[in-house]
Amino acid sequence: MNDDKSNIIVVCHALTGSHHAAGYYEGENKPGWWDGFIGPGKTLDTDEYFVICTNVIGSCFGSSGPMSTMYPHHEEYRYKFPVVSIKDMVKAQRILFDRLGIHHVHAIVGGSMGGMQALQFAIHFPKFADKIIAMAATYATQPWAIAFNKVAQESILHDPNFKNGYYDPEDIHENGLSGMAVGRMAGHISFLSPHSMQEKFGREYKRTDGLYELFGKFQVESYLEYNGHNFTKWFDPLAYLYITKAINIYDLSRGFDSLEQALLKIESDMYLVGFKDDMLFKSEEMKLIADRLATRKTLKSDYLEVDSNYGHDAFLVELEKFDKYVIKALHE
Amino acid sequence: MNDDKSNIIVVCHALTGSHHAAGYYEGENKPGWWDGFIGPGKTLDTDEYFVICTNVIGSCFGSSGPMSTMYPHHEEYRYKFPVVSIKDMVKAQRILFDRLGIHHVHAIVGGSMGGMQALQFAIHFPKFADKIIAMAATYATQPWAIAFNKVAQESILHDPNFKNGYYDPEDIHENGLSGMAVGRMAGHISFLSPHSMQEKFGREYKRTDGLYELFGKFQVESYLEYNGHNFTKWFDPLAYLYITKAINIYDLSRGFDSLEQALLKIESDMYLVGFKDDMLFKSEEMKLIADRLATRKTLKSDYLEVDSNYGHDAFLVELEKFDKYVIKALHE
Repeated sequence: MNDDKSNIIVVCHALTGSHHAAGYYEGENKPGWWDGFIGPGKTLDTDEYFVICTNVIGSCFGSSGPMSTMYPHHEEYRYKFPVVSIKDMVKAQRILFDRLGIHHVHAIVGGSMGGMQALQFAIHFPKFADKIIAMAATYATQPWAIAFNKVAQESILHDPNFKNGYYDPEDIHENGLSGMAVGRMAGHISFLSPHSMQEKFGREYKRTDGLYELFGKFQVESYLEYNGHNFTKWFDPLAYLYITKAINIYDLSRGFDSLEQALLKIESDMYLVGFKDDMLFKSEEMKLIADRLATRKTLKSDYLEVDSNYGHDAFLVELEKFDKYVIKALHE
Repeated sequence: MNDDKSNIIVVCHALTGSHHAAGYYEGENKPGWWDGFIGPGKTLDTDEYFVICTNVIGSCFGSSGPMSTMYPHHEEYRYKFPVVSIKDMVKAQRILFDRLGIHHVHAIVGGSMGGMQALQFAIHFPKFADKIIAMAATYATQPWAIAFNKVAQESILHDPNFKNGYYDPEDIHENGLSGMAVGRMAGHISFLSPHSMQEKFGREYKRTDGLYELFGKFQVESYLEYNGHNFTKWFDPLAYLYITKAINIYDLSRGFDSLEQALLKIESDMYLVGFKDDMLFKSEEMKLIADRLATRKTLKSDYLEVDSNYGHDAFLVELEKFDKYVIKALHE
């Protein structure tokens, strides 16, 4: 951080992300979730900027969530944990930043649920950031995205090992939770797209499986299975229910008469990035925000539509398609 | 049926359909699945045509399926039932038609898995039908569709009440099977589209539910829940596994060096219908077949792209968008 605290960038993470955005923790062999984007000489250049990322409230990686223990007992909240909103996530971060003596930042950057947070920051703390860079998000979660979350939620709730929310977290950590695995498979469909799946898997079949075996697998099936089951070893099911709920009820216009009224609050320079093939938060949803912002003559705003076949995941993997745009946004 | 048997139309049903394509059975208050399309004075006009629809092999509504009993025992096949293909479904129908003295038909019409059957008929029994009308299908099931089936299959397999396939069908008929319900919810996502969901549900929330209740519901969630759970009362889970497997391994080019080689077999007039917003079998997949067929100068073939926002379900509900096309195809 430089002396006048003018080089701070806040990064906001997505549904299953965490504060571990880049670099390696001791003993880990996998870097943070946006490691290709953040670091010395990278897009969010840590030689130039002081980058902060905090875990959102409701999650299971540090901030308070449904499996945190209630003071002064040592019981977990579980369903006593309140439903949180994206706005709550943003407010909690703002309180933390105040404690850290950070009252203003250069930029807030995020994709997916991180993009929602960036947009909420822009509306509710208009003077907090000079620049907002929001990617692969939306103005309000649409029913298609809610439907995917629904499959995941129902799949968790119906798993007998979930024990109606009174599971032993150690047990799930060790043995997984098949209901959450299946739900996550549905999630992975929404993170890709018909085109990206065609490119990634085509109709490749597992070499050792027979085509006419009932349980013989296409590569896409192996991919979903692996990612689904693996996921349950590192993510908490109640946190998943709470965070997907926060995403579902996210609506920038809440508390205002309309989206237009909400967007009128914004004072930061706005940079929006949509991905052509994003099936979860469609680029036209980002474009809609951009179009509304463009009517405000005194506000600086811009929109980039990335021509990508990678689906929603593009903001995590096709960094070379928007890195220059972000560098320019940070410097202009 | 007229004397020279020249007015026969074969209708092929989709995944969860049956031979009950139109009209009411005694005591029923719901007509067949394509009732708006088939009947006196309708598109497939039963005053003019003799329309036949048979239940596919592997299904649970009449033809042999995994819950049929093995002769001479009275045990169900369950996993002893062989994996069947769309080609097997078509061959079984052809054998039936031969028994009925029907060796040639005017047209074969079907959508979704019914469209796959129509295309298989065209390739494997080139002289059987004068006209093939295939809608909302594909040349080979793509990974995006396989992925949706995967979620449904895994969800069924992990439900303890499925009992690894050794469930009591009466029990499931009465109590449902939550794993199949969740899987079917994923299916319903693929039958609609982002646009159709926006139009149908928007962000409407159940009037009696609180927005900040963890289990408060958006209308789209109610829709999925209702349809998912209802489905398990009338469909068999093993049949679902077998038929989705048949769909997954469907590939018109199987047994040929290429799709082109397969399509060279066709002698019928071909009418293909794709739906712009179909998320399960994309219109470009139908267009691909049409483009290949168009290179055969001596073959009559045509393609209609229906401008629909209704998603895959359009072939069942937006009949007015292709009924005239089908009537013309049948008569020209």
